[in-house]
Amino acid sequence: MTQPLAVTIDDICDAAWVIAPAAVRTPLIENTVLNAHCGRRVLLKFEGAQRTGSFKFRGAYNRLARLDAAQRAAGVVAWSSGNHAQGIAAAARLLDMPATIVMPADAPAIKLANTRALGADIVTYDRHSESREVIATDLALRRGATLVPSFDDPFVIAGQGTAGLEIMEQAAQAGAEVAQILVCCGGGGLTAGIATAVKAQAPEVAINTVEPAGFDDTARALRSGERESVAPEARSICDALLAPQPGALTFPINRALVTGGLVVTDDQVRDAMRFAFTTLKLVVEPGGAVALAAMLYGLAPQHDGAAVVVLSGSNVDPADFAAIITGTG
Amino acid sequence: MTQPLAVTIDDICDAAWVIAPAAVRTPLIENTVLNAHCGRRVLLKFEGAQRTGSFKFRGAYNRLARLDAAQRAAGVVAWSSGNHAQGIAAAARLLDMPATIVMPADAPAIKLANTRALGADIVTYDRHSESREVIATDLALRRGATLVPSFDDPFVIAGQGTAGLEIMEQAAQAGAEVAQILVCCGGGGLTAGIATAVKAQAPEVAINTVEPAGFDDTARALRSGERESVAPEARSICDALLAPQPGALTFPINRALVTGGLVVTDDQVRDAMRFAFTTLKLVVEPGGAVALAAMLYGLAPQHDGAAVVVLSGSNVDPADFAAIITGTG
Repeated sequence: MTQPLAVTIDDICDAAWVIAPAAVRTPLIENTVLNAHCGRRVLLKFEGAQRTGSFKFRGAYNRLARLDAAQRAAGVVAWSSGNHAQGIAAAARLLDMPATIVMPADAPAIKLANTRALGADIVTYDRHSESREVIATDLALRRGATLVPSFDDPFVIAGQGTAGLEIMEQAAQAGAEVAQILVCCGGGGLTAGIATAVKAQAPEVAINTVEPAGFDDTARALRSGERESVAPEARSICDALLAPQPGALTFPINRALVTGGLVVTDDQVRDAMRFAFTTLKLVVEPGGAVALAAMLYGLAPQHDGAAVVVLSGSNVDPADFAAIITGTG
Repeated sequence: MTQPLAVTIDDICDAAWVIAPAAVRTPLIENTVLNAHCGRRVLLKFEGAQRTGSFKFRGAYNRLARLDAAQRAAGVVAWSSGNHAQGIAAAARLLDMPATIVMPADAPAIKLANTRALGADIVTYDRHSESREVIATDLALRRGATLVPSFDDPFVIAGQGTAGLEIMEQAAQAGAEVAQILVCCGGGGLTAGIATAVKAQAPEVAINTVEPAGFDDTARALRSGERESVAPEARSICDALLAPQPGALTFPINRALVTGGLVVTDDQVRDAMRFAFTTLKLVVEPGGAVALAAMLYGLAPQHDGAAVVVLSGSNVDPADFAAIITGTG
């Protein structure tokens, strides 16, 4: 017997209602140069404009807003490479909760600084030798705090899915018929949320994940039908997309709803970041630029109708961004 | 007897109709960090998302679209520090017209390159020793081409005013009551257009110009009631805002409709560009950031209600942008 999927369209509509007072309805942007390059309408969902600079606030707020007074007082613990950290920290501050975040010591300085500035306590770990899950779970148990995973949680997935609702509404307002959506994929929470939101209203829309080379666990898993893993020696500049395998909750959703997985190189990501700077005039972080890279390099299968590219986040250190736009990094 | 103003709200509504097939309806963006910093709602009209990366395409297309077949065949000549150049070049290409642009030799490389890439011929001049007006007028006369000034033209002003129409519509959609609009000011075309569009529907909205220090000719002119001039030795990083005095057509409009002129330093502009990078995740050029600088530094008089800040353009060289965001330039 097949298990039901962890999230439904009703959960996402409910999340949209819950996060509306706190979250930003981010713009869907169109650019004539990009359209001409791709030979079709391309709509960019700019999640850099979301509170904390990435989509992660959506899921974090939807999760924490469900806690009762006693749970809120006990606080929240999360682990994150940086964007979920900021999302949780910002949501916790709005809900007057203490927050502790387990973050890799080599996370971008801007992500560490922003998380700290949002009032969270930060515990760092070595990404290559320590288990963030073990550290965070231990902290949560000792404090009686709520542990909020960065993708494998129904409320988190539903929160991310609100971006999918907005995409369909905004595309309709722009007179565009969406044929395809390209979504970056780490653990698969954003993809699962968007796919659930979109497929419920428009089953004909193709959803493609995009991952950095070496972290193509979801692309391989979509082909094999099983959760695949990342090789421990893999490296990428896409610090937001380094999850080691698809989630236990997200993968069944993505296996059911996603058409296929695309893969881009770090150099293609750098080119996409430069294009975003030069032509779109948007700041996009490496992990936020993979779907744009796939579109610019013609990796997405052609469909009649508009393509939507999710620019998922924009938290990048000034020095790293400077090096990339000047071609020295 | 008072002369009638050069542009009416009807001209702007007409321009909106003319440019609709070609121009981008740019987003009005809100940011919670900026709101908290300013203690009020601040809505950002992001003209970097406009075709060619600045508002200038609006006026350029509205002007060139009025020409008949013979005039189009004879081509267009314009002078510009770079954004009007790109706007004219892009509009001319869409309308299948030859374009020649007189540009300062020290214009940002990105503006020269983009103008050339749009198919225009470029004639450079020395900003400090030669007259662009003389060079351009001579070229236009010899070729029988249409000379399109960068601000002192009713169709150009009306085209820029379409940004004002969009601001009021988008602010209403966002549930914001606009109390104040801050607009960068070089020759005053964008201000005159926006002020005409906004005051016709909401006379209570205060319009403030913002200029770089040393180029505060409009601020002084608004106080004296006469067109004032910039000192020849003045310098600023805001290459888009170096017009030597308010326009003959724009100033009477701005004198009638603008509340007052604000002035920001180049260092305040750099801070605003860094804020746009770090928090808004938007690329903004120096001249495009002056209104944001005035808002961040609390220079705008307080009003009950939302403030609108126009981010007028985003064409900045990668090396210059890199130096500013890393604090080395």
